[in-house]
Amino acid sequence: MQRFKIIIEYDGRPFVGWQRQKEHLSVQQVIEEAIEKFTGVKTTLYGSGRTDAGVHGLGQVAHFSIEKDIETDGVVGALNFHLKPYPVAILMAEKVQDDFHARFDAVQRHYTYKILNRRPRLTFQKGLVWHVPKRLDVDAMQAGANHLIGMHDFTTFRHVHCQSDSPVKTLDYLKVERLNGSDEIHIHAGARSFLHHQIRSITGTLSMVGHGQWAPEDVKIALQACDRSRLGLNAPPDGLYFRKVDY
Amino acid sequence: MQRFKIIIEYDGRPFVGWQRQKEHLSVQQVIEEAIEKFTGVKTTLYGSGRTDAGVHGLGQVAHFSIEKDIETDGVVGALNFHLKPYPVAILMAEKVQDDFHARFDAVQRHYTYKILNRRPRLTFQKGLVWHVPKRLDVDAMQAGANHLIGMHDFTTFRHVHCQSDSPVKTLDYLKVERLNGSDEIHIHAGARSFLHHQIRSITGTLSMVGHGQWAPEDVKIALQACDRSRLGLNAPPDGLYFRKVDY
Repeated sequence: MQRFKIIIEYDGRPFVGWQRQKEHLSVQQVIEEAIEKFTGVKTTLYGSGRTDAGVHGLGQVAHFSIEKDIETDGVVGALNFHLKPYPVAILMAEKVQDDFHARFDAVQRHYTYKILNRRPRLTFQKGLVWHVPKRLDVDAMQAGANHLIGMHDFTTFRHVHCQSDSPVKTLDYLKVERLNGSDEIHIHAGARSFLHHQIRSITGTLSMVGHGQWAPEDVKIALQACDRSRLGLNAPPDGLYFRKVDY
Repeated sequence: MQRFKIIIEYDGRPFVGWQRQKEHLSVQQVIEEAIEKFTGVKTTLYGSGRTDAGVHGLGQVAHFSIEKDIETDGVVGALNFHLKPYPVAILMAEKVQDDFHARFDAVQRHYTYKILNRRPRLTFQKGLVWHVPKRLDVDAMQAGANHLIGMHDFTTFRHVHCQSDSPVKTLDYLKVERLNGSDEIHIHAGARSFLHHQIRSITGTLSMVGHGQWAPEDVKIALQACDRSRLGLNAPPDGLYFRKVDY
């Protein structure tokens, strides 16, 4: 058996999320079917992490093992061919040791949340950004974000269905930037692992700060409350991108 | 009567182009209908220039006149409301003199052509870029492009159905850039006016240079031939964006 690590880009709009489900189309399913079409064998694909319905991938990582020892270029070409017509692309494939695991070996995961901060409605970007019409104060958002960096109990920023053993996570960085004077705001976050809805909950809450409804210090108060009902707002999946995984 | 100048963003994918047609949906039609819904009066919208089916707008300009004297914020809000569900947005409205004309008063038009230069298939970007799998040499493309800057007879780079009086146009700039080491290549072009398919014809031809099939000097030879059959290639509409108009 040869194990492959692949890097995947996908548009989350038509999918029910990363994880395979019985009734609805998932990213995992279309890639597993592409592997089967090209190898003739049913194969399980292991992702580095799940993404929700409507969340996008820029550099999701997964692994699978197949009998044939094929060149990586051939794997990329064959998978991309069989992934038609879905908006999923294999950007890279790499041969890895039999004990490599996309999920358990990940040491850092990186996400970016994209906001389009303008009054006019969306055209190209529908489903690809969170549309926030009122002007956001990015400096205030960063001041609020700074309270979240480091190791904390993130219960306030955790979905009720989150399956993580512990609500304690270490957020390595959380950076809010307005792209050189434009109406695009990106929030970059990195951690070994995240809670379910953690980045969306953080983003929604920071938007309250950006609108002046919350002071930056209110983020700290909400965090320390360890109480989901103290959350400012949960941002929609549209703007969330799973950007990169480090091993 | 009050005349308004508007700046428009649109995703060209669902449209037959800018100009109104009997059977198919155009950008002009959906905006004219939005004006009618909000004023109750049939009104003609005059664009600064046409775009073909599948070509996008980032800053198309148009004008129209209405009886009511409404604040510009109200015009933007009402038009954007009535433009649902089409991927068209009014970015800005401005009151102008009665003799302002979006087409005839334009002194420079700016376009950007976007290429995604990577092997893997497209996901988010389908219909929004030209997908060129083989690596392009951007420096060679710029060397070829330099032969086209200035006043020339652009017959080689002109669609057979072009309605312009003369094939002689002045290209003010033509810049080819790879976005900081990424797989995105943008070609920026500016001129008082362009011939039909001029930028797509130029882009297609420059891609021949980028692939090494043509030398940069071959662009000059093709230009000087003043012969459409000497064109390298016509690029698809997908990557073309009407970026800005100066008055």
